Amino acid sequence: MLVNGKPYRTIRIKPDDPKIIQIIDQRKLPFEFVIENLSTVNDAARAIKEMYVRGAPLIGVTAAYGMYLAALQVSKPDDNFMQKAAGKLKATRPTAVNLLWAVEKQLKAISQGKTILEMRDIALKTANQLAEADVQTCKKIGEYGLSLIEKIYQNKKEQPVNILTHCNAGWLACVDYGTATAPMFLAHDKGIPIHIWVDETRPRNQGSKLTAWELAQYGIPHTVIVDSAGGHLMQRGLVDMVLVGTDRTTYTGDVANKIGTYPKALAAKDNSIPFYVALPSSSIDWNIRDGLKEIPIEQRDADEVHYVDGWCEGVGRISGSSSNSSSKKVRITPKRSPAANYGFDVTPARLVTALITERGICLPNEESISGLFPENQEMRVEHGA
Amino acid sequence: MLVNGKPYRTIRIKPDDPKIIQIIDQRKLPFEFVIENLSTVNDAARAIKEMYVRGAPLIGVTAAYGMYLAALQVSKPDDNFMQKAAGKLKATRPTAVNLLWAVEKQLKAISQGKTILEMRDIALKTANQLAEADVQTCKKIGEYGLSLIEKIYQNKKEQPVNILTHCNAGWLACVDYGTATAPMFLAHDKGIPIHIWVDETRPRNQGSKLTAWELAQYGIPHTVIVDSAGGHLMQRGLVDMVLVGTDRTTYTGDVANKIGTYPKALAAKDNSIPFYVALPSSSIDWNIRDGLKEIPIEQRDADEVHYVDGWCEGVGRISGSSSNSSSKKVRITPKRSPAANYGFDVTPARLVTALITERGICLPNEESISGLFPENQEMRVEHGA
Repeated sequence: MLVNGKPYRTIRIKPDDPKIIQIIDQRKLPFEFVIENLSTVNDAARAIKEMYVRGAPLIGVTAAYGMYLAALQVSKPDDNFMQKAAGKLKATRPTAVNLLWAVEKQLKAISQGKTILEMRDIALKTANQLAEADVQTCKKIGEYGLSLIEKIYQNKKEQPVNILTHCNAGWLACVDYGTATAPMFLAHDKGIPIHIWVDETRPRNQGSKLTAWELAQYGIPHTVIVDSAGGHLMQRGLVDMVLVGTDRTTYTGDVANKIGTYPKALAAKDNSIPFYVALPSSSIDWNIRDGLKEIPIEQRDADEVHYVDGWCEGVGRISGSSSNSSSKKVRITPKRSPAANYGFDVTPARLVTALITERGICLPNEESISGLFPENQEMRVEHGA
Repeated sequence: MLVNGKPYRTIRIKPDDPKIIQIIDQRKLPFEFVIENLSTVNDAARAIKEMYVRGAPLIGVTAAYGMYLAALQVSKPDDNFMQKAAGKLKATRPTAVNLLWAVEKQLKAISQGKTILEMRDIALKTANQLAEADVQTCKKIGEYGLSLIEKIYQNKKEQPVNILTHCNAGWLACVDYGTATAPMFLAHDKGIPIHIWVDETRPRNQGSKLTAWELAQYGIPHTVIVDSAGGHLMQRGLVDMVLVGTDRTTYTGDVANKIGTYPKALAAKDNSIPFYVALPSSSIDWNIRDGLKEIPIEQRDADEVHYVDGWCEGVGRISGSSSNSSSKKVRITPKRSPAANYGFDVTPARLVTALITERGICLPNEESISGLFPENQEMRVEHGA
């Protein structure tokens, strides 16, 4: 999407040097926009591990380009080196399913190459294909989601459609468009007036730091709010729809997403506001029937609750793209108080209005989801569901 | 309650000098515990205005002692000076009802004094009475609330009772005990094992900064969580009751409290967990029937959302009582993103299990509330409710 008025993707081949992959150092957003060059598989592994890049789709694509960089590092086919490269990449974020999948796919594809030039060519093509597929998936989600926004707009008498979102399911988590944000970008392109309520999304503030930045850069009207405010806004008629992403959704429609999604869904239900979840079908878990009972909820480092990362003003440059940073970490809890940090919660299907996928919109139940993705029925039967 | 093992109240007469009133500079908590001396009405006004003290009950009592300090400043009865002092105090937080009420009460009482010594004596006595009445009110709330905790404990098979609370309805907002915290302190005193989930309460973090500090100082097991986590904890059976305070409750049982209270009540309802509100009867609004329609919701400064106040470690002393501070303000939103800051929300009576008052426990409806406070029925009739 746009950064300082220019189109960007989260990952790309350097325009004047195809041996370098460029990413955005997302840790510095929204205060600095810094492009990083990756030229080795180690660079790619570090970028994933140290969270220069985040978001399941982008992590997968970055790993795929990491395998391409590995192929550039050898002068002749070297299966041992490529296996090691794959291992390095897979070890960066061991629970990221997309990552494992992308690396395996690359390994298999590259093994078809007979010369080093062929291998490099295949590796680059595969990485490009993965990136392009992600863009197309997000764009399709955007188009289906757009139709829902348009429908609401027809009843709003020229007033902006107010959409509440939680966390960052934006283009920064993907290659372009994002999932929950794709319908917003397309609606804005089409001239439909929208306004986004952006949950700050404690404890890591992906909403205030990333989603707000994406929207500001694209010129979409938005307002940052604390995570507690959504219910009040819905009571007062200030929200027309809730639109969020998901980390994992069961084939029965239970939605695991960033902690705080479930209370938003409850408030939407209590105020008869539609609650939509945008997702690529890759995040549907075909093996889990009961999200509440079966999806394990990660407990993250308590320090994410104890400390807040932010920017000190008056020191360094705030809005430029300089790397002269003055980010600071401040403590907000007493020394003697423990904290707990649950990463996700599960919104039961009964609170979800519909799922927006790259194949269309479906209800959050087995029949409707399998209707869109019949090829997965067999897999479910195999698992005895 | 306790600070570093010693009993404290939020306001007191200096032990060795009855001409000085002492308060805690709450702006520095939880990182520094600093006692401030007030010796003039201007000192008292500044302490209220600059939020050394906060919480409706404590503001009222501080203003009452401010009038006593004013009486110490004149050598003979001086109605003009006392009126000016009253005006100064009332102007500090113009929407605080307790403040106006306490100052008017003092003015009227002091006017009965014929000599300056009599006036001072009356002013001190009145302030002491207000402080003591607040302590007794909170203690009674504590005793009634304790009975609810005991009932839950009987079914917990020696396991701790898990209580979730939002914001700070603690002793720091009152003179002692607090409202929502009073039952917790009394349960702990009685040896009933409890554990408190403390919502950090964005944007001002009164939960992580004040409630967590109070509980840590009293030795009550607790865990700080982000405001988004409560729903998940309730889904997983980790909360036995929700217990919060209120800024204003209608005589029909609608509860205005810190933003984020309503989503907690929704989650409690969805998981069949009791949701209790602790309140002194002074916060019942006998003129409002429909809380959602009639209670105005204050919009506060957006900078409270843009910036987080915290403590930098490694600079200055963190846990001591020194005033060598290193508090820092960091920005967490992009420069181009606006923010909105709604201070409160309204939890409809249908989501409230019961109200805990100084006269007992009642249901959140007109009949039950008037049953406890029949003397207010007349006032309601006058207002045509």
